[in-house]
Amino acid sequence: MRKILLIGIGPGGPDFMTVQAIDALNRAQVLFLPDKGAEKAELREIREQICRRFIAKPDYRSVTIEIPQRAAATHDYRETVDDWHAQIAARYRRVLIDALPDDGCGAFLVWGDPALYDSTLRILDRLRAEGMDVAYEIIPGISAVQVLTARHGIALNRIGESVTITTGRKLAAMGKVTEDLVVMLDGDETFAKIDAADITIYWGAYLGMADEILIAGKLAEVSAEIQRVRREAREAKGWIMDAYLLRRADDGS
Amino acid sequence: MRKILLIGIGPGGPDFMTVQAIDALNRAQVLFLPDKGAEKAELREIREQICRRFIAKPDYRSVTIEIPQRAAATHDYRETVDDWHAQIAARYRRVLIDALPDDGCGAFLVWGDPALYDSTLRILDRLRAEGMDVAYEIIPGISAVQVLTARHGIALNRIGESVTITTGRKLAAMGKVTEDLVVMLDGDETFAKIDAADITIYWGAYLGMADEILIAGKLAEVSAEIQRVRREAREAKGWIMDAYLLRRADDGS
Repeated sequence: MRKILLIGIGPGGPDFMTVQAIDALNRAQVLFLPDKGAEKAELREIREQICRRFIAKPDYRSVTIEIPQRAAATHDYRETVDDWHAQIAARYRRVLIDALPDDGCGAFLVWGDPALYDSTLRILDRLRAEGMDVAYEIIPGISAVQVLTARHGIALNRIGESVTITTGRKLAAMGKVTEDLVVMLDGDETFAKIDAADITIYWGAYLGMADEILIAGKLAEVSAEIQRVRREAREAKGWIMDAYLLRRADDGS
Repeated sequence: MRKILLIGIGPGGPDFMTVQAIDALNRAQVLFLPDKGAEKAELREIREQICRRFIAKPDYRSVTIEIPQRAAATHDYRETVDDWHAQIAARYRRVLIDALPDDGCGAFLVWGDPALYDSTLRILDRLRAEGMDVAYEIIPGISAVQVLTARHGIALNRIGESVTITTGRKLAAMGKVTEDLVVMLDGDETFAKIDAADITIYWGAYLGMADEILIAGKLAEVSAEIQRVRREAREAKGWIMDAYLLRRADDGS
């Protein structure tokens, strides 16, 4: 049986690597490096830096996997994602069979934490469901959520309170904030479209990287600034990854 | 100004330490080791292992801080916690002033991630609010939530869906599960008191440690087993730390 290590590498660079992630890197015979196109070249470069810095044997083998673009979402988001995953799965299957012996061990370097809004795990589950004899092991990594709160110097939860991690799409459907929310995968600047009364935002882009940007304040006061900074940064670099926490004024509950 | 590093050490042992956490350990002149009593001696021992393994200078200085027991919760949970934090803050203030020069740098080794259900950050905020000249820096650590999902081989969120991190107390107030929930700080086995229909539970105790226990299944079918195993383990070791994910059967939404 082939074994795949899903190694969480953290959100922004080699310093987020854990001891067990470094050990896992060194257990793998082949490192698989998904490539999502030109805008993500910088992210691939960080993955390559991590391999060079932490893999003990100098001649480690890496294989780039070209990831197809996702089609624009139709009315059915899950169906769109499902089609996209099917294409990626077909590519993974070929690459795993070509690059690894039957009992070989490979690794994917996964941005952030493999359990949070990453599709690698689901794609391996799909290959297993299709009958492929592949096992996996997950090595947790620091998520962007954790770097966001660390950099802003705040706790994720208030005392004894809940916090919800969600997407821009879900926030748009909610329309307002009734609990503390961390929002990820929001390319549509949904924070600017919701009722801002009594909401504080803690926003961060390129978290943990050299270009990190942080803005915090009352949403009504900083929303326009975040939009401006976000667009300028995306324009300048060609891509952006950002996340934010929305917190209602403490009502004493 | 005194500077305090809040270093997330992960939930269960040295292998969860990140490169930046190890660097931070070595920047600190003094390591502060909170001690919550006999039942947590094992956790203190893990912190000491981490210091011995990762701190380069052999004569590093550590200071144990005795943490008072929290009073049993009254009708007002936040007030109880607030009183308790006030006591801890007074102790921290004395220890920081005694152990660190005015411009010194100390570190707390925080279980899991300093942003998630940990009070160290809040206590330092309290000291600052009281006028103490102290800065802090947060070094994120792997949280028990992440080890829980990694060990069960599952994603934290479903595709495009939200997930809420909450407490046993909040779950008891909800009474039922309407979204995916991670439950922490649940000494009352609240999972056994809610409507179990269509719920799958992924439970873990001592996550990341040698004694780790994992149980997953339909809540109605494994609830009694988890209660039994949980009580036996707590009896045998004298303490337990556990967490779980509750997931409703996929309704296709």
